[in-house]
Amino acid sequence: MKQEKNTRTYEELVLDAGLADYAPVRGCMVIKPYGYAIWESIQDVLNARFKKEGIQNACFPTLIPESFLHREKDHVEGFQPQCAVVTHGGGKELEEPLVLRPTSETIINEMYAKWIQSYRDLPVLMNQWANVFRWEMRTKIFLRTMEFLWQEGHTAHETAQEASEMTITMLNVYRDFLREDLGLYCIPGEKTPRERFAGAEETHSVEVLLRDGKGLQAGTSHNLGQNFSKVFNIQFQDREQGMSMPYQTSWGVSTRLIGALILGHQDEKGLIVPPRVAGIQTVILPIGIHKDPAILEAAERIERQLQDLGVRVHCDKREHVTPGWKFNEYELKGVPIRIELGKRDLDQGCVTFVRRSTLGQKESLPIDHVADVVPKALEEIQSNLLESHKSFTLENTHYPKTLGEFKERLEAEGGLHYMYWDGQDASEEEIQATTKATIRCLPNGPEHGLNEPQNKEDVILTSTGKSIPALFAKSY
Amino acid sequence: MKQEKNTRTYEELVLDAGLADYAPVRGCMVIKPYGYAIWESIQDVLNARFKKEGIQNACFPTLIPESFLHREKDHVEGFQPQCAVVTHGGGKELEEPLVLRPTSETIINEMYAKWIQSYRDLPVLMNQWANVFRWEMRTKIFLRTMEFLWQEGHTAHETAQEASEMTITMLNVYRDFLREDLGLYCIPGEKTPRERFAGAEETHSVEVLLRDGKGLQAGTSHNLGQNFSKVFNIQFQDREQGMSMPYQTSWGVSTRLIGALILGHQDEKGLIVPPRVAGIQTVILPIGIHKDPAILEAAERIERQLQDLGVRVHCDKREHVTPGWKFNEYELKGVPIRIELGKRDLDQGCVTFVRRSTLGQKESLPIDHVADVVPKALEEIQSNLLESHKSFTLENTHYPKTLGEFKERLEAEGGLHYMYWDGQDASEEEIQATTKATIRCLPNGPEHGLNEPQNKEDVILTSTGKSIPALFAKSY
Repeated sequence: MKQEKNTRTYEELVLDAGLADYAPVRGCMVIKPYGYAIWESIQDVLNARFKKEGIQNACFPTLIPESFLHREKDHVEGFQPQCAVVTHGGGKELEEPLVLRPTSETIINEMYAKWIQSYRDLPVLMNQWANVFRWEMRTKIFLRTMEFLWQEGHTAHETAQEASEMTITMLNVYRDFLREDLGLYCIPGEKTPRERFAGAEETHSVEVLLRDGKGLQAGTSHNLGQNFSKVFNIQFQDREQGMSMPYQTSWGVSTRLIGALILGHQDEKGLIVPPRVAGIQTVILPIGIHKDPAILEAAERIERQLQDLGVRVHCDKREHVTPGWKFNEYELKGVPIRIELGKRDLDQGCVTFVRRSTLGQKESLPIDHVADVVPKALEEIQSNLLESHKSFTLENTHYPKTLGEFKERLEAEGGLHYMYWDGQDASEEEIQATTKATIRCLPNGPEHGLNEPQNKEDVILTSTGKSIPALFAKSY
Repeated sequence: MKQEKNTRTYEELVLDAGLADYAPVRGCMVIKPYGYAIWESIQDVLNARFKKEGIQNACFPTLIPESFLHREKDHVEGFQPQCAVVTHGGGKELEEPLVLRPTSETIINEMYAKWIQSYRDLPVLMNQWANVFRWEMRTKIFLRTMEFLWQEGHTAHETAQEASEMTITMLNVYRDFLREDLGLYCIPGEKTPRERFAGAEETHSVEVLLRDGKGLQAGTSHNLGQNFSKVFNIQFQDREQGMSMPYQTSWGVSTRLIGALILGHQDEKGLIVPPRVAGIQTVILPIGIHKDPAILEAAERIERQLQDLGVRVHCDKREHVTPGWKFNEYELKGVPIRIELGKRDLDQGCVTFVRRSTLGQKESLPIDHVADVVPKALEEIQSNLLESHKSFTLENTHYPKTLGEFKERLEAEGGLHYMYWDGQDASEEEIQATTKATIRCLPNGPEHGLNEPQNKEDVILTSTGKSIPALFAKSY
């Protein structure tokens, strides 16, 4: 796999770019303003997409009675070992321990049981932006932390068909969001039974290939069937005057997306943040402010013009660091556009215009054109990033003919490997044990630009006669 | 005190208007979409105000090592008794218990100690939107809950002067926000030493008189001096190359503001939500949809026009409930403007236009004028609400001449009572013990339209010769 090597490790990038820092509690992080601004943009663009689907935001409590988890057998098995538990409150031991939500199906369905009385109350389409807690053993900043931020949607429907459609609708919302807003060419597909959400009938995910050759699950959408309706006793009067139980879905993405951005778009200089979610879309650097007051005036005029156009712009007026230091800083931080404005530029009525994604190409641009050029350039940069990540992903998707070829190539290059699989848990486990790769998802290959798998003669650990196209990768 | 009586209790209003519901854990609430939309609007308008002050959002962890609380003597005394404590994680007992943040001074200052190295790093102006946890004995939905949502700002400055100014700047931000965005004529002022935040040198608050005659602390701004800098050992290289400790502030408002809105603006029909923070600013009710398809078409055209103008509009197309039922529902919910559109309206090219705050006055309005009228009407309603709440507040602020008169009037009418106080903790305590009223704050009376206190001859429990103007009320 070809990739531009950054001299910093992932963790160094996160810290040096000012995205986040380690918190004093093991496995927790502090999201600093530059990183949090990305999360706020993610919230904005996703909220707009959710709204189109008729989804409303709400807020459910963090603390869940431990007994709630126990109602759904798979759910408690999946989540209980990861729980943080409150045993004392107000100086006294509690009668029943409370867990910090690892996910909110239980508490939300307890409420739905109260709210959903008639088919007229359906569908219920709610989402919450919240912090959740999972006691992870091995943590990695943004990618796997003990506390993280996410959104979790929870819906209830009259029919199995509607719930099934909603599951796919939300998967597609995530697909479009990742591609259009984050510039990440994700591959959507169903998860194998082994990788299903604890309590779901079906789990679908969007998978992203990172520049280090690993895969990342960037979002999931679950069809819960009636599993939670049953155990939380949600019943409604149906159209035939009988009592029915709703069919449900849940779906979520988290602050791990910021990790996906970092590892999806970096180059040797640092981050490349996609304009749609960048906290700073354009930075203006007036150079030699003390030489001529007109420099700062012009910079601030451009700043106001861009602000009026809705561009998230920052004018960096610090004089105690050199222009070169600032160039490095904003390249590391991945700000999409940099506008330099020094004495010589000003004398020519121009600025120096530099795109983060093509640093070599400095343009001289008349000051009067800046307000015209910036919004268009941001759009172009956005779609170029997606094109670049798409090429990267498809170029690094392999179609090994044999298990041996797969293992060799995986070890040497990482990447995605699209192969026929025999549909057995056991063979999935054996692949994982011998290669550390897992099945990321079972995509509709042609729809996403993938070729036909090539291992017809050597279906992965064939034992059933089935041959299911599956996307393998090592992952975070 | 004159007040329009609502037939519902406060709790019934909250539940019936669909703002929130009780959660299964004692003292916790679920904020439902209609209530959460108000919170989202509050976040938007406050974020815009914070941004003007150069404040940036970030995110700090929820879990705080218990030992952190103990570092500041007053802080631990104030908050320890209210803490929820995590003792187990991942199936094991923790070496050190973790508390769920009751407020974040400790964890944030632990980070500031790492980040602040030089005067060039100052000021640090950060805010976070977060959930916090306080183990309250007596809870009341929105007003006092075990978990609530808030924003907490934390700043660090080079000089005492700057911190002092920041404390007042943020108090003024809250004052303007409450008045201009929430339509609540709050009275700002310093708190007495007895009511100070645990660990602060000065606490200021904005106090609101509710329609039931009680006061409510709607926001606070604290000057922390160097109290936390010292115990978290925050040191920076100052301009003279020496080492100094920063001066700090913190300030916050919470979901209790939604309680303030409900109790500040209600009338006999239900809520009156101020347009700037209303989740639905205008509801369109097409009536008799089945009679003529043109009715729904016209309603949807108006909906799109208003959406394009940025108005938060909802077109209620339900046919299984009567128009009368909908009128009641949106009056109860306090939607600022209702547009009715039936066959007769349409035949005349008109809609029926009704403001929530003046329900009797139904206007017939040409359809073509709706898009012109709505934004202006929303502005008018917004400022009328403030005027109304200001009159209500000033009319219900009393200037008793004697302690006896104060007690009698307080008991009979509630309201605010502006009186000279002798500045002693002991007299404050005695007033509270005998009347249940407390000093809400020590305002600059004339600046906020208050008269001179009248109890010169009977300064409240005079013992010191001091006479400090103080605002007394019973409160939540």
